[in-house]
Amino acid sequence: MSVIYDRVALVGLGLIAGSMSLAMRENGLAGEVVGYARSADTRRIAQEIGLVDRVADDLAEAVAGADLVVLAVPVGAMGAIAAQIAPHLKPGAVVTDVGSVKQAVVEAVAPHIPQDVHFIPGHPLAGTEHSGPRSGFATLFVNRWWLLTPDEGADPEQVARLTRLIRGMGASVEIMDAARHDLVLAVTSHTPHLIAYTMVGVADHLKRVTQSEVVKYSAAGFRDFTRIAASDPVMWRDVFLQNKEAVLDILGRFAEELFVLQRAIRMEDGEHLQEYFTRTRAIRRGIIEAGQDTAAPDFGRSSAAEKPLAPPEE
Amino acid sequence: MSVIYDRVALVGLGLIAGSMSLAMRENGLAGEVVGYARSADTRRIAQEIGLVDRVADDLAEAVAGADLVVLAVPVGAMGAIAAQIAPHLKPGAVVTDVGSVKQAVVEAVAPHIPQDVHFIPGHPLAGTEHSGPRSGFATLFVNRWWLLTPDEGADPEQVARLTRLIRGMGASVEIMDAARHDLVLAVTSHTPHLIAYTMVGVADHLKRVTQSEVVKYSAAGFRDFTRIAASDPVMWRDVFLQNKEAVLDILGRFAEELFVLQRAIRMEDGEHLQEYFTRTRAIRRGIIEAGQDTAAPDFGRSSAAEKPLAPPEE
Repeated sequence: MSVIYDRVALVGLGLIAGSMSLAMRENGLAGEVVGYARSADTRRIAQEIGLVDRVADDLAEAVAGADLVVLAVPVGAMGAIAAQIAPHLKPGAVVTDVGSVKQAVVEAVAPHIPQDVHFIPGHPLAGTEHSGPRSGFATLFVNRWWLLTPDEGADPEQVARLTRLIRGMGASVEIMDAARHDLVLAVTSHTPHLIAYTMVGVADHLKRVTQSEVVKYSAAGFRDFTRIAASDPVMWRDVFLQNKEAVLDILGRFAEELFVLQRAIRMEDGEHLQEYFTRTRAIRRGIIEAGQDTAAPDFGRSSAAEKPLAPPEE
Repeated sequence: MSVIYDRVALVGLGLIAGSMSLAMRENGLAGEVVGYARSADTRRIAQEIGLVDRVADDLAEAVAGADLVVLAVPVGAMGAIAAQIAPHLKPGAVVTDVGSVKQAVVEAVAPHIPQDVHFIPGHPLAGTEHSGPRSGFATLFVNRWWLLTPDEGADPEQVARLTRLIRGMGASVEIMDAARHDLVLAVTSHTPHLIAYTMVGVADHLKRVTQSEVVKYSAAGFRDFTRIAASDPVMWRDVFLQNKEAVLDILGRFAEELFVLQRAIRMEDGEHLQEYFTRTRAIRRGIIEAGQDTAAPDFGRSSAAEKPLAPPEE
């Protein structure tokens, strides 16, 4: 693949930025990848493990001369970063971000972007429960969606160029309206995360009752929640604060729905329960057909993670 | 491994019974495995794929002469089955079950069990979102817990014998009080399932708003919920009806907790959110340390399920 941007600056060196660096370098998509993180510790680790071609010691140095600047910090920090880098951006450069919320980022970042710089907000739907400079890997974006929410005045050529970079890392690009993005993600990601956090919190309170039993017998469903609830706390704090309206809307519907099911249990309305559970099963089928998950039982975890049967005892 | 029961009868031929048959046969734990299912279709499929050594056409025939009878039907059906098989049980035989609820099963089954037959209730903490006679596999129980809840008068020798069979299939056995079992499972399994069903139901209602977008962009958290919510509807209907009190108790705590987080979002109390999310992360660590899940990012799904990077375009 040929180089798409001569110099890429990554602001923030966590899971997403680290994976981008590895994917761009593995596929020869960038001439040079420069990285900056606020924490000196993160910068040192990035240096040690060679996460980027060059670690910059301040923001101005990081973005100077960059053809693409990627804001990969918690959503709540984007506005301040944009204000700081604005005077140092190269004319004609592209600024994008990888935040999980789009309207709030646009409102915080766009006013700072100079006239001669292109701002194309983005959101890769990829991640794991791990975070930090050691958590990235080159194939994180393969077969994943990467949503871009450029405004109407965006330069189509620059959107196409950024799209080529993203495709080069293995992802598929979709253009979307920022408000719609925030609603869809409130359903598919933000609210599920909040619910998982809540369920794990309930179990935590019960720890004294059930001691280690909650952990010990977690395989029966709970452990899937704990994986989601192990995601980066600061990133998620910002997501909920910045996509507040959509999340509160979906949470309201969720609570309503939960009370209806709770009532069905209390009234022993088995028909209602069975009918409901049958309907939800069909959605799973849709997701597998859409190629967004594996049909392997239990994510293929049962066969991969286990040791083989114990040898005969006698 | 040597034969532990000369004849094992499986009543019900779904995921758990099918996996037991395959595991017992692969490890030479049973002289003969006889299977019965109420549905003629299931019996025909079991016959065709050789799931058991012999398919019986009625309940009496299935359990006749069996040294171990396994009730592997939805929890709500256990009592009626117990009543039907009781006159045909061999003196000295062991009856066990694999239901996800224990107190209700004991109440429904125990009164029918003859004096000269041993009833040892059980629950393997293993499963996938698949069901039916084709869904079983021999390694389902490997490294999983299998809880037994015998009453105080149970014959220790018979409990030890059943334990040997279970260990031979790769699982670890723990003895537990039935009431405690139901509370712990309400936390680790039943309530998480109900919540996942609810969230998927909310998304289903929103389908007209977001069309296929919910499915398309499910990778961001939601798909983990859909896997849980794809589990067998009849089995789960019965679980909620039969473990009603414990589930309603945990659901009440969950709703309380959710409202506190919802309020923190509304009041923009970022400190509370971040602190909460940091605490839940620690529980995940506990589960990985307890060997109940893989530490691989995203269950190792990212690397296993995806195709490699696309070849260069130019």
